[in-house]
Amino acid sequence: MAHIDLHNDLPGIRGLMVYRPETAKALNALAEVLLRDDNNTLSCGDRELIGAYVSYLNDCFFCQQVHGAMAQHYMQCDMQFIDNVKQDFAAASISGKMKSLLGIAAAVQQGGKQVTQALVEKAREEGATDRDIHDTVLIAAAFCIFNRYVDGLGTTAPADRQFYINRAPQRAEEGYAEGNLHR
Amino acid sequence: MAHIDLHNDLPGIRGLMVYRPETAKALNALAEVLLRDDNNTLSCGDRELIGAYVSYLNDCFFCQQVHGAMAQHYMQCDMQFIDNVKQDFAAASISGKMKSLLGIAAAVQQGGKQVTQALVEKAREEGATDRDIHDTVLIAAAFCIFNRYVDGLGTTAPADRQFYINRAPQRAEEGYAEGNLHR
Repeated sequence: MAHIDLHNDLPGIRGLMVYRPETAKALNALAEVLLRDDNNTLSCGDRELIGAYVSYLNDCFFCQQVHGAMAQHYMQCDMQFIDNVKQDFAAASISGKMKSLLGIAAAVQQGGKQVTQALVEKAREEGATDRDIHDTVLIAAAFCIFNRYVDGLGTTAPADRQFYINRAPQRAEEGYAEGNLHR
Repeated sequence: MAHIDLHNDLPGIRGLMVYRPETAKALNALAEVLLRDDNNTLSCGDRELIGAYVSYLNDCFFCQQVHGAMAQHYMQCDMQFIDNVKQDFAAASISGKMKSLLGIAAAVQQGGKQVTQALVEKAREEGATDRDIHDTVLIAAAFCIFNRYVDGLGTTAPADRQFYINRAPQRAEEGYAEGNLHR
């Protein structure tokens, strides 16, 4: 049970968004532009993977499952692949560019000042643009709000990982615009 | 100098927002509804104080100064009072309700799961409503994105604290809606 009475029994951030639609609108707009907007050189799969990884580092079960399932959907892989990345991205079958960006994301999760010039230069060497680096920092920072919001209010989450996998295709189609997370 | 070329020399989050106006729009909307919207039982001063305190815990100089100056402006106090709250809110001349909410904010800064039922119950005993608790968690979480965004991209910030105090009245009047942070 959540720490406050949400007047609904929706899981994770969905219950919070129905409780407080005014803030939900801005949060959904942020998720939409960061994770789903086409004007981006990072694929939707890459961006969801960064989100799932930061949620793993923040130990947020709901966000890990939602965004891990989204990454799996976009990348057409299985959840084992997503789990491998979360647990040891350096050993995973992903590009050098993605490894360097996940390194930056891990630093952001610890704190903004943990992002060093060396991490940024490494990402550039691997082909990341300034926009890639900008968006990686902001996506990682954004999951530091989503994860804290979901767990800070003690929301519930379905334990069955298949629940999230089943929802991913519809969410990928509809996006994060206001309202769609509520269903 | 920032980690990436922002094509402008504006300080802190302002330079980032000019660099990437698409994400700025959502971030500004979030700040506006959380910190400035009238439909709230927490005063603007209380909400800015929570933001300044979390920014202090995250060691983000720019956000501490901006939102400390905003709190000082709304509360019609001096910066020494804001500094006292940041350094030891339990000993500061603020309400028991605000002390309990700052306790929740400090937990959120550490991680969502650090918010215990005991902290929430304490806030209720001090007169906090569910909405107060919700907004405190979300404001504290929001500064975990703002602070990481500002420091994760290595932005610059004026060292003179008076710069922020001088800007606060105009910012309070204009709000955080898109564009106003850019000036």
